[in-house]
Parts: sequence; structure tokens; C-alpha cells
Amino acid sequence: MTELVLHNYFRSSTSIRVRAALNLKGLDYLYAAYALLQSEHRAHAYLTLNPQGLVPALQISPEKVLTQSLAIIEYLDEVYPTPRLLPEDALGRARVRALAMIIGCDIHPLNNLRVLQALRKDFAASDGQVTTWFQTWVHEGFAALENRLDHESETGAFCHGDEPGLADICLYAQVLNNQRFNVDMTPFPNISEIFARCESLPAFANAHPARQPDAV
Amino acid sequence: MTELVLHNYFRSSTSIRVRAALNLKGLDYLYAAYALLQSEHRAHAYLTLNPQGLVPALQISPEKVLTQSLAIIEYLDEVYPTPRLLPEDALGRARVRALAMIIGCDIHPLNNLRVLQALRKDFAASDGQVTTWFQTWVHEGFAALENRLDHESETGAFCHGDEPGLADICLYAQVLNNQRFNVDMTPFPNISEIFARCESLPAFANAHPARQPDAV
Repeated sequence: MTELVLHNYFRSSTSIRVRAALNLKGLDYLYAAYALLQSEHRAHAYLTLNPQGLVPALQISPEKVLTQSLAIIEYLDEVYPTPRLLPEDALGRARVRALAMIIGCDIHPLNNLRVLQALRKDFAASDGQVTTWFQTWVHEGFAALENRLDHESETGAFCHGDEPGLADICLYAQVLNNQRFNVDMTPFPNISEIFARCESLPAFANAHPARQPDAV
Repeated sequence: MTELVLHNYFRSSTSIRVRAALNLKGLDYLYAAYALLQSEHRAHAYLTLNPQGLVPALQISPEKVLTQSLAIIEYLDEVYPTPRLLPEDALGRARVRALAMIIGCDIHPLNNLRVLQALRKDFAASDGQVTTWFQTWVHEGFAALENRLDHESETGAFCHGDEPGLADICLYAQVLNNQRFNVDMTPFPNISEIFARCESLPAFANAHPARQPDAV
């Protein structure tokens, strides 16, 4: 089997997700770094791998590159089924995907680098306005996530039962991202507890930006 | 079996997706409408169904409500497997999910109602600026999608092979959404052709906003 190559960036929240998933599965991979602030992900070489010019992308063979962090993690879960990152039952999978997508669709895309750059460029947003924008979408999404974790019986030590999975991966990466924008986590005790449990596991800790070769 | 109830809004792009999926599966459902411009989706009654206060949500029993359009469609595909909306092979599924998520994660969340309202409110964005914002993210995402549809051998009459699926559902809803913001589709011939093929099928045509009971 060809070695897996992860095209990514230490601080990228979607990159953290895929690193955590690879670590949970116990899969080795080569780390290819792209300095987003130097726009290396917009260079021709990378665009031939991923025309969208976003990280992460997972190269699974010389010809085949997978994109979109949630799609990559679903693929890993199908091809390397142990340990499971999605539950066995359809209802459980629907719940875990929905919790993951609160973050993956309704928080993170609004707060990633290119969007914050656009706010500064198009609307002359100040640092304070950018921080408020970031916090607003986190608070909206996390309020819903916290509510569901608190009220739904499927919640266990992690988002769904007592083993970490796709929703926890997204939660972990988002909470790390929040730390750069001073998000007050007091209203989110369930999320905070699950984050702490993730942090204590090597698979998550080794996905942390500070532990990556391109960390600055 | 309890009747399915779709909580949605005629013009919402994510609602269009779930309607098209239900129609492709040949599933009947009750249509529950929420007037987003009157904030009916933020009212208490709806928040007890979906704490996130976003449409669509699919009620599959008196106690069970599914949220997040992509998670709902994956659930429908698992529980009602014919016709398939995701391919049989893991690589195919990874590709279809990634194409769907170019739209579902990197275009639509940046352009939905609450975000455009925030631009107007927080940055006093003019109509012209809102239109430019909308078009910018569509162009970025569609350029990547068009490139992949054009270069990848898996593309057929639809995004993946010759039958419509999850990626086509997202494409159809996004192109409809674009029409409200005058997006120039000239650079996207593959996307346009697939959209036209979707439009010609009753399952898609019957998901169109103009055909819904709450259309104005």
C-alpha cells in the first residue's frame, strides 16, 4: 500500500480534524505542510492536487487525492473500520453527522482564514469586529450543540456514547480554534468537558497545532 | 410507520436539497412551512424541535427529529436505499461527498440569510456589496467544482456517473439560489448542463421553491 500523505497546515482546524482521525485509526502518514499565510495552498503545484486550493487533502495513492475533511474522515472510517468514528446504526450516524455539521457547516466555514481576510478587505473590519464576527457564529452553533449534548440521552463521556468519534473530532478542533479568539466557554460546560477528555487522549493531543513540524 | 414531516421554507437552499432527496426516493411527507423573514424558525415551538433554529429538519417520528440537510440525506440513503444517492464504493462516496461539501461547506454557509443579514447589520453592507460577497464565494467554489467535473473520469451525465445523487442535489439547489443574485454561469458549462438535466426530472422540478405551498 502506498503511504498516506496529508497535505495540511498546523493551525488549520480542518487539518486538525483529519490528523486526529488518522491518529485514532492508528494510521501513519507523511506530513506535507503548506504555509497558508504565504498562500502556498494557492500555488499551481497544490491546485493540481486540489483545485479548490484549500487544506487539508489526503493523498491515498500517486493518482488519488481526497478532499474535504468530513468526506476524508468518512472514507477513513469505511476503509479502516476500527475503531469506529461513526455509530453502527443509521439514527446514530445521523445524529453524529448533524452534530459534526453544526461545526463543519455552520461555524467553521464562516470563520476560516479566507473569510476573515475578506471582512478586513471588503468591509475594512477592525480586529475587534473580526473577533466579534468569529465569536458570534461560535456562540450560535455552540449554544445549539451544548443544548443537544445536555438534553439528548445518546450523549455519554463523548458526544455520542463513551468513545470519541466524528463529532468529537470537530468539537476538539473548533475549541482549539476558539482559543485564538478568546471565546468564553463558560456557557458550554458539556462541550468543555468533552474537549478536556479529547485533550487527554494521545490521538487528539498529537493532532494539536503545537506538535506539528510546521508549527511556529 | 409515522408520516415524515419536513420542517422547511420554500426558498431555503438546504430545504430544496431535502425535498429533492425525498422526491428521488419516492417518499411522501407533510410540508410544515416556516417563514424565515418573519423569524418563525427562531420561535420557541421550532427551537424545541431543532435547537439550532435553522431549517430544514425532518421529523421521522413524534420523538425523533433529524437536522442538517446533508446528514438527513445520508440517513434517507441508508434507510431507503433505492435509488442510491451515494455510490457503492468508498472512493466514489468520498468523491460525491467532497463535491457536495464544496457547496455544502464552502459556498452555501457563507451566503445564507443570517450571514447576509449580519453583513448588512454589522458592516452596513449595501445591496451591491452583498451581491458581490455572494458571487465571490460561488465563483470560488464553482470554479473548483467545474474543474473537477471537467477533468475527472467519474463525471457522467450527472456529477458521478449517469444517475443523480447527493452532489447533484446540492448543485441543483445552489444554482437555483444563484439565480437570485445574478451569478454569471458562463464559466461553468459542466455545472450548467448537469443543472439542466436535474431540472428536467420531476423529482427536482417538484422541489423547486415556486412549487411549494408557502411560495410567495
